[in-house]
Amino acid sequence: MSHRIAVIPGDGIGKEVMPEGLRALEAAAARFSINLNLEHFDFASCDYYLEHGQMLPDDWFEQLKDADAIFYGAVGWPDTVPDHVSLWGSLLQFRRRFDQYVNLRPCKLLPGIKSPLADRKPGDIDFYVVRENTEGEYSSVGGKMFEGTDREVVIQETVMTRTGVDRVLKYAYELAQSRPRKKLTSATKSNGIAITMPWWDERVVAMSGSYPEVSVDKFHIDILTANFVMHPDWFDVVVASNLFGDILSDLGPACTGTIGVAPSANINPEGTFPSLFEPVHGSAPDIFGKGIANPIGQIWSAAMMLEHLGHPEAGQAIVDAFEAVLAEGDEAILTPDVGGHGTTESLGRAIAERI
Amino acid sequence: MSHRIAVIPGDGIGKEVMPEGLRALEAAAARFSINLNLEHFDFASCDYYLEHGQMLPDDWFEQLKDADAIFYGAVGWPDTVPDHVSLWGSLLQFRRRFDQYVNLRPCKLLPGIKSPLADRKPGDIDFYVVRENTEGEYSSVGGKMFEGTDREVVIQETVMTRTGVDRVLKYAYELAQSRPRKKLTSATKSNGIAITMPWWDERVVAMSGSYPEVSVDKFHIDILTANFVMHPDWFDVVVASNLFGDILSDLGPACTGTIGVAPSANINPEGTFPSLFEPVHGSAPDIFGKGIANPIGQIWSAAMMLEHLGHPEAGQAIVDAFEAVLAEGDEAILTPDVGGHGTTESLGRAIAERI
Ligand SMILES: CC(C)[C@H](C(=O)O)[C@@H](O)C(=O)O
Ligand SMILES: CC(C)[C@H](C(=O)O)[C@@H](O)C(=O)O
Repeated sequence: MSHRIAVIPGDGIGKEVMPEGLRALEAAAARFSINLNLEHFDFASCDYYLEHGQMLPDDWFEQLKDADAIFYGAVGWPDTVPDHVSLWGSLLQFRRRFDQYVNLRPCKLLPGIKSPLADRKPGDIDFYVVRENTEGEYSSVGGKMFEGTDREVVIQETVMTRTGVDRVLKYAYELAQSRPRKKLTSATKSNGIAITMPWWDERVVAMSGSYPEVSVDKFHIDILTANFVMHPDWFDVVVASNLFGDILSDLGPACTGTIGVAPSANINPEGTFPSLFEPVHGSAPDIFGKGIANPIGQIWSAAMMLEHLGHPEAGQAIVDAFEAVLAEGDEAILTPDVGGHGTTESLGRAIAERI
Repeated sequence: MSHRIAVIPGDGIGKEVMPEGLRALEAAAARFSINLNLEHFDFASCDYYLEHGQMLPDDWFEQLKDADAIFYGAVGWPDTVPDHVSLWGSLLQFRRRFDQYVNLRPCKLLPGIKSPLADRKPGDIDFYVVRENTEGEYSSVGGKMFEGTDREVVIQETVMTRTGVDRVLKYAYELAQSRPRKKLTSATKSNGIAITMPWWDERVVAMSGSYPEVSVDKFHIDILTANFVMHPDWFDVVVASNLFGDILSDLGPACTGTIGVAPSANINPEGTFPSLFEPVHGSAPDIFGKGIANPIGQIWSAAMMLEHLGHPEAGQAIVDAFEAVLAEGDEAILTPDVGGHGTTESLGRAIAERI
């Protein structure tokens, strides 16, 4: 049996880190005799947009829906295509149409990486952000009135559904239950966002009865971001709405030293549609072309993908490999963001060899 | 001429830090011969709610509207009154009805306070968050449908107006222009929140022409929170919507060591209504009653209030006093959050004596 993987590098450093992601993926597949069938796509990128006037071909859904997984780089090139056009025309479509309602993002301080937080070492920061990934603040409902005049009013609706919220909460509770600390933290803002968020809090409480072993707490998003910096050791599994999860899953990795290493899994837990694996970082126009982007976010995403496809040992081999290379700390190999003067390729090759 | 100040301690540690805020205020008033007429109010607290079934008396607007300033402690006691009830019934009313559309919050690493960020010293972090304070994500528009069923849908609207956005941007541009670095950073999320935030970006650009000396950049809120941790020295003035400003002005102070010292000014720049001065921290039920809350957030708010009332030298005297006490670092005086084993009162008295 072979896994059909759709490979989409996208824009900017997505194109630079993808080859290293594939190198690691193929090394792990070879070692564990996993059959991969990689199909490459150039759409869902701003280059494609410039040629075709849209981010995706009309039949993208047909082309991708039978893949076992999508392996994505990064998307966005604001100099040529506005971000909301490129993102809503690609990544955000995938998440929604393939009902990837869980965005799972580990935040872990790795050996050999210096945290910007004082006195934190590996083991001190090790939690997951579980982000709702299809609805909430990322809605497409709203509009403008009195446009272009002094009376202009612009409205955007946050839309939450019981179906949408309960299923991601369930995923988060189960994840917390499966971990030694069994601790769940809910991100809220029910004191200020007074319609949706108090209701979110109610759903968190309503579900707690089914998971008596899980201890639950909640923080308003403002103080929660402060606690990520002051007390990152407090957290085990953090569940959040689409926007709050977006924020926390950049801030968390920043506290672990670099967002260049952070992976993410956009999961359709039922397996009705393909899940999507991508680094947390974006296309990074500022460093594109220099060959210095850290490929570990892409490589770690490959590990999450293999685990999702039923090969946890292959995923673990990838994680072990990049942890070993980081722990060695050879500056000639490591990329600048983690204190070296190597390149995307030198770091990618070192990791693949280790696998 | 005397300034009429409405004093509202509110809930929890608000009641503990307010006496120290007043001690500093009165010390500065005495030294600079400023006439203060303090009026004390017990409303806008959860105690008041428990007695009266509402947070404010019916004529609160009349009682407060002629004050020159409001000096507030903290509000919220979720064990007895849900946060959205207490907050929307008090603080959020004041901000809106008194059109305090600028929420100004300094983030400054002070001498003697250890930052949770590695290798940061005073001078490295010194910026302002300018938060829109009356509209945006904190709307009261929305509701529920199919309530209590599996089909439940909950909607809340973000409402931005050109009037509301332009006036706070103007304030932020002018503040940036008045500072040596003349740098403005806009918090956005135009890649995901695709109706309101691209329009926010347009308004930022539209106004930039009037401030040619100010250099402007923007970051999406997710990576912006990461940059607060990784590069806090990048920032000078950060302008943000109501929700994003709320988040950034807790995260910023956390990066400076403790949110216990952070002050805020809710300003009605036209002076049509009173402005309101309060610490950034909340009522902190977890430490209430122990007498260990840091009073500097309240004391620094008093300094901002004096400056607003036309007494910058008195405000500066307060700032100089708490900076000196912090720099001395006497553990018997400092509160636990800044490394001491003193009390709210010991720290408050030391600062007042210095003034
Ligand atoms: C208490 C709460 C409603 C308030 C806010 O979100 O505005 C507080 O966090 C603040 O920052 O002043
Ligand atoms: C690019 C952007 C739309 C996206 C998001 O906000 O979801 C990104 O920040 C992410 O976290 O995957």
